[in-house]
Amino acid sequence: MSLNAVQISEFRAFADTLADAAADAIAPHFRAALTVEDKGGRLYDPVTVADKAAEHAMRELIQERYPEHGILGEEHGEARGSSPLTWVLDPIDGTRAFITGLPLWGTLIALNDGKRPVLGMMNQPYTGERFIGTGDAAWLGERRLHTRACADLGAATLMCTTPDMFDTPARKAAFERVAGKARLLRYGGDCYAYCMLASGFVDVIVEASLQPYDVQALMPIIEGAGGVITAWDGGTAQHGGCVVACGDPALHAQVLELLRSAQ
Amino acid sequence: MSLNAVQISEFRAFADTLADAAADAIAPHFRAALTVEDKGGRLYDPVTVADKAAEHAMRELIQERYPEHGILGEEHGEARGSSPLTWVLDPIDGTRAFITGLPLWGTLIALNDGKRPVLGMMNQPYTGERFIGTGDAAWLGERRLHTRACADLGAATLMCTTPDMFDTPARKAAFERVAGKARLLRYGGDCYAYCMLASGFVDVIVEASLQPYDVQALMPIIEGAGGVITAWDGGTAQHGGCVVACGDPALHAQVLELLRSAQ
Repeated sequence: MSLNAVQISEFRAFADTLADAAADAIAPHFRAALTVEDKGGRLYDPVTVADKAAEHAMRELIQERYPEHGILGEEHGEARGSSPLTWVLDPIDGTRAFITGLPLWGTLIALNDGKRPVLGMMNQPYTGERFIGTGDAAWLGERRLHTRACADLGAATLMCTTPDMFDTPARKAAFERVAGKARLLRYGGDCYAYCMLASGFVDVIVEASLQPYDVQALMPIIEGAGGVITAWDGGTAQHGGCVVACGDPALHAQVLELLRSAQ
Repeated sequence: MSLNAVQISEFRAFADTLADAAADAIAPHFRAALTVEDKGGRLYDPVTVADKAAEHAMRELIQERYPEHGILGEEHGEARGSSPLTWVLDPIDGTRAFITGLPLWGTLIALNDGKRPVLGMMNQPYTGERFIGTGDAAWLGERRLHTRACADLGAATLMCTTPDMFDTPARKAAFERVAGKARLLRYGGDCYAYCMLASGFVDVIVEASLQPYDVQALMPIIEGAGGVITAWDGGTAQHGGCVVACGDPALHAQVLELLRSAQ
């Protein structure tokens, strides 16, 4: 289904409500100590507790306000709705960043219209940054975001969360073909790196082993800022797997040639 | 020379002044666009401009207040003083983080008494976090920091800025010995990772190719929080090179065994 501007605006405001609720659920657990509770030896694992609590809070709000909508979440799986609209949730993308205290994790909220994500939000409560995209435009808070021009891989800044995410030799080799030609490589970043690409500070991100909820919220942000994000074969990125994002469409075409055979 | 508590307190307040001056010099350039100026085609490179401006500002303050002190800085080299006290400065540690817009870079300020760094500060102005250590204690702002217990590498969280920093096969193999036994590995972090170790969220950091000004400010923070930081051969870390930091002294002894031969 196609949404009009009024609907997008309503859902965007609702996504803000979801992000606020997730932030409240997560806050007590960020930079809390992993501990074994004395009685019974149960483990208190801050990221697991925070992840589940935040997804639960968001699901309750969606079911109350839009009971006809579907929900796909990392922690509690899929709940189909009678509407083609589905909320795709990753309460804490960047688990390792969260565990190590780095403010690079984010709460990812996407709205998929049955064909593609049409609204995306990445919220980083510790730095107070909220990135929003509608595919046509993207913002950090109130400020419009634009990717930067960079048509040449030799001048490009490349990011990737970890080289360990390439789970076959062909995928690892494809990543290394891109990394070998890029001007600069920076590891670590998760969803935050995609938002820096949308903001014009990163030119290309090459990743693999992603889930749909890892990527759907980021697509309308990157596309809204003028970038391109696809699977390595050039198809939609919404199913996760091997994903490539570029700020400059011309760079995307160039990088795709280096990746396509390894999808 | 050995400093008393009153002197340390005075120098700590002065380090705050230096960090504030550096932050003011850097602020206009973080998340600014890399541009080629039209006339003459000169490149405006935000990180280079910010780095030089911040070091210049700190050097001026030191020369005015303590003309007898030495200064060792990343950008403008060494200026020997008549006193054994030397300020060791890295205006922007984590250049790649800065370039890509990530708030993980920091301004590093150390005071070395001629034998070792006795005061260290890491300032991250975007998140508003200031880490301070005196070797005996460490703080984030007003809050005392403590490393966490983790005596077993199999339970440890490992960080390293990038696997590319290991510049010989023996060093790369040594890092991989540690990484292969650790519970979890997170790349990316620079000085911020060392502060997360001091805060009890990271257990071990293994790095190489460091400069003295990359590490001296971090030593009094880690030691003050209860951790251990040395070269891979167990000697002082203050000269940079191959460095290992652990929150738990027992873990440090264990990791050193895996690294020692590759120093």
